[in-house]
Amino acid sequence: MEKVTNTQNRITPRAEDYSRWYTDVIAAAELADYSPVKGCMVIRPTGYAIWEKMQQALDGMFKETGHVNAYFPLFIPESFMKKEAEHVKGFAPECAVVTHGGGKKLEEPLFIRPTSETIIWSMYKKWIQSYRDLPILINQWCNIVRWEMRTRLFLRTTEFLWQEGHTAHATFEEGEKETLQMLEVYRTFAEEFIAAPVIPGKKTDNEKFAGALHTYCIEAMMQDGKALQAGTSHNLGQNFAKAFDVQYLNEAGTLDYVWATSWGVSTRLIGALIMTHSDDKGLVIPPKLAPLEVVLVPIWKGDDEQKAVLERAQKITADWKGKFSFKVDDRDQYRPGWKFNEWEKRGVPLRIEMGPKDLQNDAAVLVRRDTGEKRVVKQADLASEIRSTLDRMQTDLFNRAKAFREQNTRNIDNYEEFKKHIDEPGGFFMAHWDGDGATEARLQEETKATIRCIPLDAKKESGKCMITGKPSERRVLIAKAY
Amino acid sequence: MEKVTNTQNRITPRAEDYSRWYTDVIAAAELADYSPVKGCMVIRPTGYAIWEKMQQALDGMFKETGHVNAYFPLFIPESFMKKEAEHVKGFAPECAVVTHGGGKKLEEPLFIRPTSETIIWSMYKKWIQSYRDLPILINQWCNIVRWEMRTRLFLRTTEFLWQEGHTAHATFEEGEKETLQMLEVYRTFAEEFIAAPVIPGKKTDNEKFAGALHTYCIEAMMQDGKALQAGTSHNLGQNFAKAFDVQYLNEAGTLDYVWATSWGVSTRLIGALIMTHSDDKGLVIPPKLAPLEVVLVPIWKGDDEQKAVLERAQKITADWKGKFSFKVDDRDQYRPGWKFNEWEKRGVPLRIEMGPKDLQNDAAVLVRRDTGEKRVVKQADLASEIRSTLDRMQTDLFNRAKAFREQNTRNIDNYEEFKKHIDEPGGFFMAHWDGDGATEARLQEETKATIRCIPLDAKKESGKCMITGKPSERRVLIAKAY
Repeated sequence: MEKVTNTQNRITPRAEDYSRWYTDVIAAAELADYSPVKGCMVIRPTGYAIWEKMQQALDGMFKETGHVNAYFPLFIPESFMKKEAEHVKGFAPECAVVTHGGGKKLEEPLFIRPTSETIIWSMYKKWIQSYRDLPILINQWCNIVRWEMRTRLFLRTTEFLWQEGHTAHATFEEGEKETLQMLEVYRTFAEEFIAAPVIPGKKTDNEKFAGALHTYCIEAMMQDGKALQAGTSHNLGQNFAKAFDVQYLNEAGTLDYVWATSWGVSTRLIGALIMTHSDDKGLVIPPKLAPLEVVLVPIWKGDDEQKAVLERAQKITADWKGKFSFKVDDRDQYRPGWKFNEWEKRGVPLRIEMGPKDLQNDAAVLVRRDTGEKRVVKQADLASEIRSTLDRMQTDLFNRAKAFREQNTRNIDNYEEFKKHIDEPGGFFMAHWDGDGATEARLQEETKATIRCIPLDAKKESGKCMITGKPSERRVLIAKAY
Repeated sequence: MEKVTNTQNRITPRAEDYSRWYTDVIAAAELADYSPVKGCMVIRPTGYAIWEKMQQALDGMFKETGHVNAYFPLFIPESFMKKEAEHVKGFAPECAVVTHGGGKKLEEPLFIRPTSETIIWSMYKKWIQSYRDLPILINQWCNIVRWEMRTRLFLRTTEFLWQEGHTAHATFEEGEKETLQMLEVYRTFAEEFIAAPVIPGKKTDNEKFAGALHTYCIEAMMQDGKALQAGTSHNLGQNFAKAFDVQYLNEAGTLDYVWATSWGVSTRLIGALIMTHSDDKGLVIPPKLAPLEVVLVPIWKGDDEQKAVLERAQKITADWKGKFSFKVDDRDQYRPGWKFNEWEKRGVPLRIEMGPKDLQNDAAVLVRRDTGEKRVVKQADLASEIRSTLDRMQTDLFNRAKAFREQNTRNIDNYEEFKKHIDEPGGFFMAHWDGDGATEARLQEETKATIRCIPLDAKKESGKCMITGKPSERRVLIAKAY
């Protein structure tokens, strides 16, 4: 990994080097840092505070839909991983393995969870006897380890934080309903909190979760036109129930295997947030996820002005508590211009500038982080103006990102043309595909692009596969991806 | 580990087998379960909900005292552990070690964090240059692994959840102030939330944290008279700054090593909660930490009564939201008596019984989980009676536990007498000790009791060491411990 230098002053412009820009934004906002452990990052307080806001919103939505939290072990015995054939094939190669504990070699190696289906279903076997024990609607917030060769802060790290829901149901239909319900929770969260428009869809068989019947996902477009998978929801069928022999007595009095789902989002969402909204000045955080929403920068020269302007700041902000999070940056050792720049890098949605002249006019200047728009506001109106501006900014960010995605999404029917355009201008391509995994593999090999999903709202449309010319019934979403 | 059978109906009485009682209470309330991974437990939803309440309260107190959360890697390179001589001696023998990742043998084994001082101080070296970077006041919520041979649910498990604060300061005095401040936060939390009276004190050199200058702790008494260490706060001096070469430029312009503290509490606190308040009927949860505070059990015979009583329940509880957490147990397949028993096992602080006769009188019966006290209350007064009863119960639980501790704490001056009494009646013993580690080791060897702490409020009192007869200046707290 490259070094994150947080003392630098310059953020590389996106046009110059998008990848470098991303790392610079993270460094300048002090969101994360590389650790001395290969592939692992440190989530710094500013980055972690965004994760806490995300957790709070998501956890509330999980609980509203009837889920409860629990905690299962970090370790998974090797033999458990092997019980579901597809699962072990998919995950074992990227596991970290504990071979020694308490100074002794272990009888059986322990895998550090790359996902928890196996350990959780070994417990569900103990807890499920009859239909009365169903459904089980459990979620877990925890750390996950998947050995990664090429890592990127937040997007792909050996250890990351996530939540994983694991539910057990009496029927396929109920499981499918749950799978789609949680996909919808993720879509709502991505669009209403991260302000990132997403395309909900179904993964192809090649791309589905190892051990699932099928996988749904939400795909977002980053500012460089690449796709980012922002959340997945899996219908696991009876695969894990069969692997762990979890049967239940149904109302008719006969035994049947239990139906399963799992679904997860991770700290990767912070990467999505950064790459959807930030600019060449640094981080932009949608207000609903901003740990600090407003910063007031008082401006003064000399002690008298300082006293007057700080007193006024105190007075104005006295009743702000509970309305939005704010800070008065009264530091003496920095100039206002330095502070403006500092809070812009850190993505605080609104800045208020207030100097001696503003005091005379009972006014202040309200500045939006995303557009740079400045407005003079009467001090008496500040609290309500702040509230409405934060709300407007949240909506504007979403609309802007959506317009960007629409501008960069095109139907395409010719493979040669696709190959020309996939890197420049890039973006999302809606193309016909013959449904064959071999064709999909060829696409990836020849262009490095992948089928991101079959959008749930894709209309029936007779066409020919862009690559093989074979018949196709609907367009799929193709893009390069993180 | 023994099996946790949650289908059993009987809770072993404390007088019959205290240890079995503890496991039975956990099983009956479905707080936790043994996992197939040796020494690791599963925290079930009801247990995890208590942990969430604990986290919420503690996290609020940490933030009020200026701390922020962050996240550091799970893995610690072997070479890091070795940088602080005492630290590696104390922790390396109980570590789990990852030797393989991504299918390959690692160049350097990775320890799973038994505590995070080393990985965190390797980062502080990057972040601290001058006094302007100080203090750093970071906390982390995470999982921890320490290989344990003899495990007990919540009290001692190979993996557990905790928080660990790691702060960096410019002076010894500031670090010491922080260490004591966090001890006071823990004392407040234990006494005001868990309703468990604790004795704050200093650990002896034998018992202090591996790598600390000195360690403070809070010690609670369980119902069997044994001590439980409920939290620790360490003044680490400059030990870790020296091990990781973390120096800062002070205001005078010279380089000095940074001063450190660390402090933590874990899911062990759930064990403390259980063993402080629960009884032979099952779990008792102090109201402030109860995920479910009130359960209303409607009583009916036949459809008409059912309709009437459920309608009234609906009407009564309509404005309870936000005042306390509650549930109307309207399940048809269980009888009221079964439900009473069920919610008692699960430790819900208050039960309301309401049948057809109560409807006529506009009344209901309010039952306290801890005392069994029943009171007829007018329905119109229920909400306010519930609120005041919950508050009273919180105070009563603390006072009862405190009285129990006082009854079971005695001054002792004769070692032979101590040996007679340490098992029967047991409890806390305040005795003179000569301050010698060898004497302390002898005490432990001969009696299995340990010096729990030198209480912070211990008065100066000239005396003779109970064991050696050498002079002593204050009494220390001696007990058997979990």
